[in-house]
Amino acid sequence: MKALWLEEGELSVRERPVPDRGGEALVRVRLSGICGTDLELARGYYPFRGVIGHEFVGEVVESPDPAWTGARVVGEINASCGSCESCRAGRPTHCETRTVLGIVDRDGAHAEYLRLPLANLHRVPGSVPDEAAVFTEPLAAAVEILEQVHVRPTDRVLLVGAGRLGQLAAQVLALTGAQLRVVARHDAQRALLAAKGIATIDEAEAEHRRYDVAVEATGSPSGFDIAARALRPRGTLVLKSTYRGEVTLALAPFVVDEITIVGSRCGPFAPALRLLERGEVDPLPLIAQTLPLDRAVEAMEIAARPGMLKVLLRP
Amino acid sequence: MKALWLEEGELSVRERPVPDRGGEALVRVRLSGICGTDLELARGYYPFRGVIGHEFVGEVVESPDPAWTGARVVGEINASCGSCESCRAGRPTHCETRTVLGIVDRDGAHAEYLRLPLANLHRVPGSVPDEAAVFTEPLAAAVEILEQVHVRPTDRVLLVGAGRLGQLAAQVLALTGAQLRVVARHDAQRALLAAKGIATIDEAEAEHRRYDVAVEATGSPSGFDIAARALRPRGTLVLKSTYRGEVTLALAPFVVDEITIVGSRCGPFAPALRLLERGEVDPLPLIAQTLPLDRAVEAMEIAARPGMLKVLLRP
Repeated sequence: MKALWLEEGELSVRERPVPDRGGEALVRVRLSGICGTDLELARGYYPFRGVIGHEFVGEVVESPDPAWTGARVVGEINASCGSCESCRAGRPTHCETRTVLGIVDRDGAHAEYLRLPLANLHRVPGSVPDEAAVFTEPLAAAVEILEQVHVRPTDRVLLVGAGRLGQLAAQVLALTGAQLRVVARHDAQRALLAAKGIATIDEAEAEHRRYDVAVEATGSPSGFDIAARALRPRGTLVLKSTYRGEVTLALAPFVVDEITIVGSRCGPFAPALRLLERGEVDPLPLIAQTLPLDRAVEAMEIAARPGMLKVLLRP
Repeated sequence: MKALWLEEGELSVRERPVPDRGGEALVRVRLSGICGTDLELARGYYPFRGVIGHEFVGEVVESPDPAWTGARVVGEINASCGSCESCRAGRPTHCETRTVLGIVDRDGAHAEYLRLPLANLHRVPGSVPDEAAVFTEPLAAAVEILEQVHVRPTDRVLLVGAGRLGQLAAQVLALTGAQLRVVARHDAQRALLAAKGIATIDEAEAEHRRYDVAVEATGSPSGFDIAARALRPRGTLVLKSTYRGEVTLALAPFVVDEITIVGSRCGPFAPALRLLERGEVDPLPLIAQTLPLDRAVEAMEIAARPGMLKVLLRP
């Protein structure tokens, strides 16, 4: 099969054997999405050799349980052991021996086929097109904010960053009824939010010590600073983006103001699919381009451009 | 009156006028306690000129409401406006225009007399001696951990630091029934905890990725590292100490492991007094020395020694 292969920082579309993992479902990929993590892997920020990609929608072509064969599915990316302390405590996404689709010890979704345990798969409702279903994984990551933090309808919420993940987080946060402001740098990002009735502001307009919740979705130290300064005492700072390298910060203000900082990663698929099915979140305007898998290396370059939204690959 | 005066980094016991603040109660101090914050103020880490000290027990000698006259009291240290957004939202300790006893714009407790609003005062139950009541303020700060974080009886809890505040935090955390381990450096600190049946460990014995909750009470970057490494995924790190200067840290692990960091400062007096009254927390063994107010400058030097526990001043 064809797949986007990463090895020692070099990307190439090459022929690979169809993955073989005993007892797991084989999924023919219909569409995959390029994520910021893919770009970071390609830049060598995390060690990985193999097929990258973890956002996908596909069709089960081989399954240990025949009831799944032919099903159109999306898949949770953390394959867990089920028996370690994290798994038994109900935190399978934090399994100590997990593999992660296209990220840790497991070939990923920018390919014609992938394998995942059946337990990871979710059927896609018929009314949700592939182009929306492929956003389930990042939408679940946005939903994770509400899984971790109680955002109240009366809260003031600041979202810093309106890129691929930020756009989805904005749509999810707007559903709470909270007073939401989004710091967006690019005109295209602002236009998308405006079309959803979501208010955007400049960095300089983010008032200090005013917001109950601030979500940082840029992964940059400057985004962290904007979010931290915007919080009122006892406010909550959600880190919704991974940070390369180290950040230097004064911790005393976080103690004096009793700020809560919450790291946030993968989220629950079931509510993400419900929101897509009910049309509460509309990811389609976030698609910038769709390229054939053959042109995956070029697609990665396009996805890396500043302000670029979602680039999809079709095998 | 006599008072411990701080001005441009110089401490002296000097004669000062009895404080005059219209409408506030006048309290004759019976005993005051030297806190780490006092030492930091004297070192110039925060700007302050005036009488330092914020832990006290005293007797009301003048009150706008005569029902308080003669009462033996302790006092919350944040004097709030009652009308700003923080106050109206039920966060008076975060009042934007607050003064703080012996810390911000208000003369403090290492003196013969102090003033506080009546709303800040709490009567001390008759069975609680002055030597215990003087610990109400730092004990309330320890109780604040449980006010902010749900520590479950089945949790594993690591407390890093067993100094003045750490000892009180240890006694409070032990009340939850959780499996508590305390990282203590000094033999005297260990002995006090052992006498309470609280297990101490060395830094090297603090297992990684094991604890549900880690409380940092040293205020040092190394303490922060020990606490952070000890947490399991989705664990909670409580910052129970102010940090001088800046800390450099990699934020990515906090996102990947979805760690929650909670800054923690002043706490509620009522439950602290209940715990003292019921004998659930016993601060008396933490008293290292009691000196007359005349010798307050010497007392500050003694309190600054490594591993030193509580030094009290008697006016």
